[in-house]
Amino acid sequence: MAVYTQLSAGTLGDLVAQYDVGQLVSAKGIAEGVSNSNWLIETTGAGAAGDTRFILTMYERRIDRGDLPFFLDLLDFLSARGLPVPRTIHDRTGASFRLLDGKAVALIEFLPGVSVDSPTAEQAHDLGAVLARMHLAAQGFSGTRRNDLGPATSSRVLAECGADALAAIDPALPRAIRLAREVAERWPADLPQSVIHSDLFPDNVLMLGSAVAGLIDFYFACTDAMAYDLAVTHAAWCFGEGGKDFRHDIGHALIVGYESVRPLLGPERAALPLLAQGAALRFVSSRAFDWIDTPAGAMVTRKDPMDFMARLEFYREAGDRAFA
Amino acid sequence: MAVYTQLSAGTLGDLVAQYDVGQLVSAKGIAEGVSNSNWLIETTGAGAAGDTRFILTMYERRIDRGDLPFFLDLLDFLSARGLPVPRTIHDRTGASFRLLDGKAVALIEFLPGVSVDSPTAEQAHDLGAVLARMHLAAQGFSGTRRNDLGPATSSRVLAECGADALAAIDPALPRAIRLAREVAERWPADLPQSVIHSDLFPDNVLMLGSAVAGLIDFYFACTDAMAYDLAVTHAAWCFGEGGKDFRHDIGHALIVGYESVRPLLGPERAALPLLAQGAALRFVSSRAFDWIDTPAGAMVTRKDPMDFMARLEFYREAGDRAFA
Repeated sequence: MAVYTQLSAGTLGDLVAQYDVGQLVSAKGIAEGVSNSNWLIETTGAGAAGDTRFILTMYERRIDRGDLPFFLDLLDFLSARGLPVPRTIHDRTGASFRLLDGKAVALIEFLPGVSVDSPTAEQAHDLGAVLARMHLAAQGFSGTRRNDLGPATSSRVLAECGADALAAIDPALPRAIRLAREVAERWPADLPQSVIHSDLFPDNVLMLGSAVAGLIDFYFACTDAMAYDLAVTHAAWCFGEGGKDFRHDIGHALIVGYESVRPLLGPERAALPLLAQGAALRFVSSRAFDWIDTPAGAMVTRKDPMDFMARLEFYREAGDRAFA
Repeated sequence: MAVYTQLSAGTLGDLVAQYDVGQLVSAKGIAEGVSNSNWLIETTGAGAAGDTRFILTMYERRIDRGDLPFFLDLLDFLSARGLPVPRTIHDRTGASFRLLDGKAVALIEFLPGVSVDSPTAEQAHDLGAVLARMHLAAQGFSGTRRNDLGPATSSRVLAECGADALAAIDPALPRAIRLAREVAERWPADLPQSVIHSDLFPDNVLMLGSAVAGLIDFYFACTDAMAYDLAVTHAAWCFGEGGKDFRHDIGHALIVGYESVRPLLGPERAALPLLAQGAALRFVSSRAFDWIDTPAGAMVTRKDPMDFMARLEFYREAGDRAFA
């Protein structure tokens, strides 16, 4: 959550002029996104769609420019198929992103809706259904991208952090090294795949009332098991503060919603407890790495890896019960 | 520039329901304001004005709740007189602010426009004219508020920081203690007053093309000399990076614009060099204090007091030349 870069009004105006969207009226840096800077842009409107509001995203780090066509084409693909996903606004030359001061920027459709911290069962049900619709639609997308944050990566990252550095964060954290290795060894290789979001936290979902109005921030999207995406979403949505207080009703609604569109296969359902442990470890490992890697004085909120250790332990204990 | 507080979608929705503005559609934390949190709010619209966008401000610190009626009534007063100032949206009971989790919040009109880093002479001219119009209009405002950041405060704050702590920031900074005392001693007491903005930095002005579309962030507004406000604005707008590279053309346009609406009196014009030194010292002192007061690890950008030391030295050297 940050605006890393300052853009002058002149720079913004010149940029907007490269698109058929009218004149710049307003630009506010918004506190969203962890690997990019974002502005809410208002223009006088133009073009066929006549939109007057857009999100301008500047890709700051962690995002390989070579991946941008995959991410931005995916938005367009899903949006064109009726998914609540913001399309990319292409510039007058047809390009989906441009370079500004050496950094890639894209103009993205603005979607209404607010992120909810604690969903209702109705919202969780709709989220599951929309996720399944997205998985089915994305199977027709021609692009592919390897998941470079899978269980093998989690295991390697934690091992490289080392038990001492992990123990300095929390005495219960070094245990993640062994658990990650075990999860990676048992990881199923043959579950049905699609393009998955893989980071569908509440921040990345816009709700209007009880319905999903937007899925955003596809910058971890990759080709991987659909059931893994459901497990990530489960881990991200069904717990209270600190990864405690599992909300069975929310998890249940999420899965029922998902299966109302795309019933899980037997092996997918059987794999959910392990997939959820892998999902928890994905965030344990990246947060532990960032914690060690981030100077205490940096202007970034360090996220506590223990929030996902708590989820990991829960999924280990609960097994199938968590998904019943 | 920060969003200090997280508000859940439910809390935001409940809050918006207290106003006749329709249903909540979107809420984005925006990276504006140094002593408050701000959200750009979108609603379905309702009421006579039919506005659909608003700024929600939560007052975090530095702002005395007892001052809020002054600030918010001032916005309404100036807006009603045709100044480009956002009015306050009153709730269904007529209140201009409410309490949320123990903190005061206000819903403010959204104004278009973008903040420019480096104004054109045309923009500076219009800014001067709007500032003068605001000064004249605000003379009819019944509220008053003492300027608690005047030259005596600057002098006291710098003395209390102490030469050693200032020298630790920059060897050239302790000299500000003596200069501030001298400026405070020579400060004119009888210049014509109004309610002044007193913090009219580029961040607090929204431009559309070459015209001022909004003056915002009146949370330092107070009753003081109008020429001092012009001097603050001059110090805030007419310099390049680090307080260097005085732009005479911008300063000239600002003053010519101001005088196109409200000609300065002889004593005001004669006082400008001193007033500008006082303006520079106001920011030297608060920035030095914040620098010393802010832990290095805090998630706040510390502003370098030396940027305004450079301006102070410039105004001392240039004298009347800076305003010719």
